[in-house]
Amino acid sequence: MSGTNAGSSLDAELSGLLGAHWITDGSRLEALRGDRSGLIAEGRGIGLAEPADTEQAAAVLRIAAAHGVPVVPRGAGTGLAGGGVVGAGRIALSTARMTEIREIDPVDQVAVVGAGVINAELDRAARQYGLRYAPDPASRAISTIGGNIATNAGGLLCAKYGVTREAVLGLTAVLADGRILRTGHRSVKGVTGYDLTALLVGSEGTLGVITEATVRLIPRPDVEPVTVGAVLPDLGGALELCRELQAAGQRPALLEIMDARSLAAVTRYLPEADRPGPFAGPLGAGSAAVIVQWDAEGAGAAAERAMRLVDALGGRAIRCDDEAGGERVLGVRRAMNPALPNGTDVLIEDVCVPRSRLAEMYAAIARIEAETGIEIPTAGHAADGNLHPHLSVRAEDRTPGGEIPERVWDAAARVFRAALDLGGTLTGEHGIGVLKARWLRDELGDESFALQRGIRQLFDPRGQLNPDAVFVADDPGANANGDTVP
Amino acid sequence: MSGTNAGSSLDAELSGLLGAHWITDGSRLEALRGDRSGLIAEGRGIGLAEPADTEQAAAVLRIAAAHGVPVVPRGAGTGLAGGGVVGAGRIALSTARMTEIREIDPVDQVAVVGAGVINAELDRAARQYGLRYAPDPASRAISTIGGNIATNAGGLLCAKYGVTREAVLGLTAVLADGRILRTGHRSVKGVTGYDLTALLVGSEGTLGVITEATVRLIPRPDVEPVTVGAVLPDLGGALELCRELQAAGQRPALLEIMDARSLAAVTRYLPEADRPGPFAGPLGAGSAAVIVQWDAEGAGAAAERAMRLVDALGGRAIRCDDEAGGERVLGVRRAMNPALPNGTDVLIEDVCVPRSRLAEMYAAIARIEAETGIEIPTAGHAADGNLHPHLSVRAEDRTPGGEIPERVWDAAARVFRAALDLGGTLTGEHGIGVLKARWLRDELGDESFALQRGIRQLFDPRGQLNPDAVFVADDPGANANGDTVP
Repeated sequence: MSGTNAGSSLDAELSGLLGAHWITDGSRLEALRGDRSGLIAEGRGIGLAEPADTEQAAAVLRIAAAHGVPVVPRGAGTGLAGGGVVGAGRIALSTARMTEIREIDPVDQVAVVGAGVINAELDRAARQYGLRYAPDPASRAISTIGGNIATNAGGLLCAKYGVTREAVLGLTAVLADGRILRTGHRSVKGVTGYDLTALLVGSEGTLGVITEATVRLIPRPDVEPVTVGAVLPDLGGALELCRELQAAGQRPALLEIMDARSLAAVTRYLPEADRPGPFAGPLGAGSAAVIVQWDAEGAGAAAERAMRLVDALGGRAIRCDDEAGGERVLGVRRAMNPALPNGTDVLIEDVCVPRSRLAEMYAAIARIEAETGIEIPTAGHAADGNLHPHLSVRAEDRTPGGEIPERVWDAAARVFRAALDLGGTLTGEHGIGVLKARWLRDELGDESFALQRGIRQLFDPRGQLNPDAVFVADDPGANANGDTVP
Repeated sequence: MSGTNAGSSLDAELSGLLGAHWITDGSRLEALRGDRSGLIAEGRGIGLAEPADTEQAAAVLRIAAAHGVPVVPRGAGTGLAGGGVVGAGRIALSTARMTEIREIDPVDQVAVVGAGVINAELDRAARQYGLRYAPDPASRAISTIGGNIATNAGGLLCAKYGVTREAVLGLTAVLADGRILRTGHRSVKGVTGYDLTALLVGSEGTLGVITEATVRLIPRPDVEPVTVGAVLPDLGGALELCRELQAAGQRPALLEIMDARSLAAVTRYLPEADRPGPFAGPLGAGSAAVIVQWDAEGAGAAAERAMRLVDALGGRAIRCDDEAGGERVLGVRRAMNPALPNGTDVLIEDVCVPRSRLAEMYAAIARIEAETGIEIPTAGHAADGNLHPHLSVRAEDRTPGGEIPERVWDAAARVFRAALDLGGTLTGEHGIGVLKARWLRDELGDESFALQRGIRQLFDPRGQLNPDAVFVADDPGANANGDTVP
């Protein structure tokens, strides 16, 4: 680690390079200690570098490497696993100035964008050409394409349109030592060598800093989406409805499920006027919800069938045949985040199981609730088997610093274990980050873990990039600041 | 390399392990010297190992590693780049016995299959559940899922349904030293660590031997496909038609283009009775063809529009509203392979460019034809920008051994260069194999090449797996048999 002299030389070099875009203001650095995970890093970072482009990012990394100072890549700070928190001794490298949509090509149906472009802005720009950027994490209005790529962000539309990886054709990334790597193609096909594009997607800033991306756009559906929002008497009915809606041949664009605790939390949070159809009225104690949307020809017939199914299951539903109405219904699901925000009182988790095991995963969560006394409202993307258990911190368990108490982490660990036992994963779309690093090896197994750590060392031998994330817990030496792992 | 004693010990060990499935019969080994690329390896391999399962494959690799003998993984031998040819001093490891479809799950919409399962057989099995295995390389009737994955095989449906990578959720692979690696998930989502599944896809047997795969199935379209086959007066008209058929909102399932030489070759090959509609009649000298198919609601309207476009461009077309009729039309495109088989007289190439540059790529090929005097019939997947130039060997250039003459390789190199200059790639779907290894670094650039070679060394430090493919030409040391690269 650099001492005082090295520190001031580092400061001078980065000031010289970036001018006002090398920021050491205390309040800015304070904000960078956290993200949307609720985690707060120990201490403040050294400074915030906001390079204008790939070349400047490379220069920042060369300077940092020369001083042996680790760098944490940072998008919009919307991560839910602490992968972008910046603590003592680290430099934050932000993509905030890389916001250029360089190109949208309606013939190739690709966009070339800076890593700092906001997801929803790209989609808005694509809309002018009748195209869409499909990956739609819940954070899409505020999260960046670069951050989405670094975490392989998911969202509501994945079962039909795939995760972020499927949308990324090529990348520009800066390696820890400042080398610039270009991967991939402008075409869907291309099999020259290994798929480094896919390797960088989801690497959470540990292999390189993504600065630019070539992404795939797809034709925007030319029919209005049809949406059904249903309240079922119990979770069993909701799960049954989800199964029926995915029977072969059916392909909803999205399919969301909310259990009774989730529905109760949202009902408390949302004013009645914002709760359409059955969500407005009084809800039975165990009621659960399903929201489904179709965006292709035949949507009307599918919705009709869904309404009949809801009826047969003893539920009530609203159907909306236009986008605005659909958004109102989806608002019920989207209210989960503000109703139960990640942080002091809630730990939002992100397990994913084969969708045939959803009922078993819900049952496991109920068992863990009963055994630990911790409430776990759980909603998620039923078509993917991706559930977000919201582990609640009880008043008596609150910690002085606002960190998630160990007791809640213990319950989370049981949730992870249950997901793994069902053939699932710790994290469907949020990433490992800092918060889940200690369970990484459990899921990967020894062979995969060793190879992955080897890849990390190949790209970043000194562990300079995002050293507190992903590969930390099991072998601290692998990511120790400035140390080479033998 | 093992001497005679080591050799007989190797033989005894593999016989002991595999019994009759360790094959050293001369005629079998002779056949393994080639694949569908036309390349013939120097000399015959040591033997052919046909392990029954992953564990036996691991045992084969441990024995081979102990003897320092390289291993070439082999599927059905349908490769077009020489990635599976087995020459002197090598053991062939075949997946021919790993043909079990272990599971098709209609709820999760996944299949778990042995690497030796034939692509079309998996699709046939999925059909019973109303599902489909989408990746459809031209070889699908005879190629294996393992080989498809090892080359990230493409096909006709990729622009709409993606390449093989998009269909692969998880893999079991055996590393060079016999360790068994399991990657991925049974769900579409899952972001724990790096995406080793995607890294193995397209790695052409240089990272591990893929023995089992969990693949994604998708609902089979419930409408009959509608197909239009058109003959246009010239290539310009065909390209114009392709552009129009891909205008925003339109999404054909497949879109094929054939230039005049391709059409002439197919017309010579196919009996008139097998050439439906305009393909039967006399064709103008410069005529080119477009074949397009839709498989979703709205297909009829799209076909109607296509017929009008063809008419406006001065062409003639046939429309078929059922699958059987569509197959007859597609038969015209599929006849390219038997009409101009890879081998002594033809070198089939596989460039891919952004689809907006298709006309420029065709123009470059015409220039190369004019400059070299080599005829290059070119057909391909227009929606992907993926063209297959068929470089013809002139009678006077034939080599005594039947190898592709250097003069033809020189022309191929010009085709590659033109594709790279247009922002494209050497290979859209066939792979680098042995034949294109010498151009690998040109496309990747130094940074990517170095990282990829590093990954190869991490997985296979002694270069035991498929040592003649992919990473050979630029630095022979990197893949020398049994040598560690410094």
